[in-house]
Amino acid sequence: MVKIVECIPNFSVSREVDEKAFQALVDCAESIPGCTLLDVQTDGSHNRCVFTMVGKPEQVGEAAFQLCKCASENIDMTKHVGQHPRMGATDVIPFVPTLNMTVEEAVELSKQVAERIWKELSIPCFLYEDAASRPERVNLASVRKGQFEGMPDKLLEEDWEPDYGERKIHPTAGVTAVGARMPLVAFNVNLNTSDLKIADEIAKAIRGSSGGFKYCKAIGIMLEDRNIAQVSMNMVNYQKTPLYYAYEMIRTLASRYGVEIIGSEIVGLLPAEAMVDCAAFYLRAENFDCKKQVMEYHLINE
Amino acid sequence: MVKIVECIPNFSVSREVDEKAFQALVDCAESIPGCTLLDVQTDGSHNRCVFTMVGKPEQVGEAAFQLCKCASENIDMTKHVGQHPRMGATDVIPFVPTLNMTVEEAVELSKQVAERIWKELSIPCFLYEDAASRPERVNLASVRKGQFEGMPDKLLEEDWEPDYGERKIHPTAGVTAVGARMPLVAFNVNLNTSDLKIADEIAKAIRGSSGGFKYCKAIGIMLEDRNIAQVSMNMVNYQKTPLYYAYEMIRTLASRYGVEIIGSEIVGLLPAEAMVDCAAFYLRAENFDCKKQVMEYHLINE
Repeated sequence: MVKIVECIPNFSVSREVDEKAFQALVDCAESIPGCTLLDVQTDGSHNRCVFTMVGKPEQVGEAAFQLCKCASENIDMTKHVGQHPRMGATDVIPFVPTLNMTVEEAVELSKQVAERIWKELSIPCFLYEDAASRPERVNLASVRKGQFEGMPDKLLEEDWEPDYGERKIHPTAGVTAVGARMPLVAFNVNLNTSDLKIADEIAKAIRGSSGGFKYCKAIGIMLEDRNIAQVSMNMVNYQKTPLYYAYEMIRTLASRYGVEIIGSEIVGLLPAEAMVDCAAFYLRAENFDCKKQVMEYHLINE
Repeated sequence: MVKIVECIPNFSVSREVDEKAFQALVDCAESIPGCTLLDVQTDGSHNRCVFTMVGKPEQVGEAAFQLCKCASENIDMTKHVGQHPRMGATDVIPFVPTLNMTVEEAVELSKQVAERIWKELSIPCFLYEDAASRPERVNLASVRKGQFEGMPDKLLEEDWEPDYGERKIHPTAGVTAVGARMPLVAFNVNLNTSDLKIADEIAKAIRGSSGGFKYCKAIGIMLEDRNIAQVSMNMVNYQKTPLYYAYEMIRTLASRYGVEIIGSEIVGLLPAEAMVDCAAFYLRAENFDCKKQVMEYHLINE
């Protein structure tokens, strides 16, 4: 079975501010055989762009490295201005296992790419999220704290020796964070109430941090235009905390307030398995094997 | 977007009865670039085998033709014995649109292949199911009635001129039926009752032929080993009659008898869309776009 990994590198440049450098990155991404550029987001005020690429691990790893090289040749962080926190020309490279691949394999890939970035480009790298070498490096915000301008000093602190490289930033490309994590599904559930407190209470009950589902992050928000409250979630491991766990628990908790679910939103891309598992649950399918019975997996595996 | 078609040709030979001819077909199927042989079923008492292939229309059409040629060179219908009704060395070739393809496009493909089989192999062809040229040819059993031995006379009857070819069978390869249909999902729902009559009544209520869902075929059967009744269905157009229509209607009808659904079975392959649509229904997903948001479609479309 073919393994597919997703990679979502973030670069400190935008089409709006430096079209030439931005285009060089796009051209670079499109030049790697076997790596598919699904999406490019660019934001002028952030002066930052985000690529979404998929393919086999070897090709996607190659693409991540080549993009990092291209960014180091085209972006000068000493001149970078933008609203979004950043510490490198290539700011962050997350790898996400998408098909027939474990998060451990994605961690291994992130380490290989980080090592190569240091050895061939002399850009120091931190490992983060599931690839992190110690707990305080799991959270990207902690790793990036101080940003490009603060990194020369930060790297000299006892706890902040890079995972790959010397305690000295690349003069123009800074520092890069490379990591791995499970696919994240952005899943929001809308309630037939305008009482934000109800959504807040439900969010608190279902999120892992306060005793709910381990791989669910949740907050209550108001959809002002519709005047309804929403439980807004990031499902950070849909295999271990499926979408229907959250949906059914929200339904149960809402009923206590006489409130009902009126709809949900799934934002952006998600693996078919996350939806197929829900269908199998609600249809009470016995012995359903997603990978064997869903035709599309056979098409991908060829 | 890439188009993918499935083809499930049936040949009048089995590994058990004639291993050499059977293997020639397998080798032929595996030799066509861009056509993937997913599955081969062979049955000695039927003396028949069924191939499941997928790929782009052009390659799968080529494979179907080459297999038909191979069968005509390796199978002599004047010597064929088997329990399953059959009329040709290649008995039947159905094309099923699987991805980014309409059933009309599959009909077009079936006509091209049938025409080529006649022109290059001199095997007369009937079109059937959605490709049928007249109502009495929709049903394969009607087309095949009389079988190989009766075909010489049948082709001379006023109503049974082949769609492609003369009114004369190929001396050893007989006649072939070529057609197109939507993917079929075999979907069975198990009830917590041992009363077959209840499953029969529900099946009658939900099937199109007696006034239920147009694209649902259903019968009641007993699962003797579990002593429970089952509504056994073929969902012949999951886009127009989704699986959850049937499931929810069965649940409602069963409740009238104080009976509940205890599980379901999905047999064999089905398109991801058939499951994703169910998930979107039960999760009340607003504005969910299966083809854009499910990652795997992007992998296939590259």
